[in-house]
Amino acid sequence: MGECSPVQPSGVEINLQTGEMLEPDRIVVRRASDMRGYYADADALDQLIRERGDPIHYEVFEKPVPETPGNLMYCISKLHPGLVGDEFFMTKGHYHQIRETAELYLCLRGQGLMLMKTEKGECVAEAMARGRLVYVPPSWAHRSVNTGAEPLVSFCVYPAEAGHNYGDIEDQGFPKRVLRVKGEPQLV
Amino acid sequence: MGECSPVQPSGVEINLQTGEMLEPDRIVVRRASDMRGYYADADALDQLIRERGDPIHYEVFEKPVPETPGNLMYCISKLHPGLVGDEFFMTKGHYHQIRETAELYLCLRGQGLMLMKTEKGECVAEAMARGRLVYVPPSWAHRSVNTGAEPLVSFCVYPAEAGHNYGDIEDQGFPKRVLRVKGEPQLV
Repeated sequence: MGECSPVQPSGVEINLQTGEMLEPDRIVVRRASDMRGYYADADALDQLIRERGDPIHYEVFEKPVPETPGNLMYCISKLHPGLVGDEFFMTKGHYHQIRETAELYLCLRGQGLMLMKTEKGECVAEAMARGRLVYVPPSWAHRSVNTGAEPLVSFCVYPAEAGHNYGDIEDQGFPKRVLRVKGEPQLV
Repeated sequence: MGECSPVQPSGVEINLQTGEMLEPDRIVVRRASDMRGYYADADALDQLIRERGDPIHYEVFEKPVPETPGNLMYCISKLHPGLVGDEFFMTKGHYHQIRETAELYLCLRGQGLMLMKTEKGECVAEAMARGRLVYVPPSWAHRSVNTGAEPLVSFCVYPAEAGHNYGDIEDQGFPKRVLRVKGEPQLV
């Protein structure tokens, strides 16, 4: 679908219990080995990759639309449960390339946190659970963290022109991490 | 929340079975009397208003965000079931003021159709049912029609600057109507 061909109306099936999208056109897969550099305990990540065969960390299921202003990109984000040392599985996290664009997460399944930060150093966490909508305002970097025992699955929407900037998070990380402390998730 | 105060991250609860939004900040209510001029059978609408005390036709539940580019407006749309003569209950329908903006409907409950049209006269209907996502592309006017026995409830997202243009539909209508023919919905 190029920028010159007008977008046609379309319908897609999403299972609202499991979050499964029927026949996605594109699946982005991040494995444990794609997460090197993100967790505090690099040795624990290496061990996980070695012992568990580099398992899928998270997946994004999409029906792409033209990446032009006025369109809305939507996807299903599925973050598997687990720990790297004492740190809960998380997504890489990103700003948008066009910073001044928001993103909506409507959580369909699982338990977790949406970690958000600004360039000024503000850091906020919002709870994610089935039926919870989290509004990530323009200019806030965002990362999902799965603190539960099942996949954390959300329906996500953002302006189609937004783009992703992963580099800044890869370099700077987030001011806080979500660790398991005495069996409970804790922001430290 | 003014345009100068930065938007903060926020969370909202939405019941994914019923579509109920917890503590909406704004509720738009359209009653049967607000729908004068929209249905083929004006006498049937007048009779319905007279006999049933001008019932609520549809409601929109919102947590407003600044209406500026980059933000995303989201709401729950709830269209009650019923007939005006042989015509199924529907929303007024609208273009966006900024035409080149899309809208997403994720249906949570009920049965119906999303009727869409362009200025060139194209007209398309997409089925709405629980778990069905309908993509309304930029420049397409859109109207929900409830063909079922329970409320048609959808989670909707659109670019916050889009605005609503109801006048063009009030003047021109849609090329097609959804009528009950021999007990079944039919596009005529």
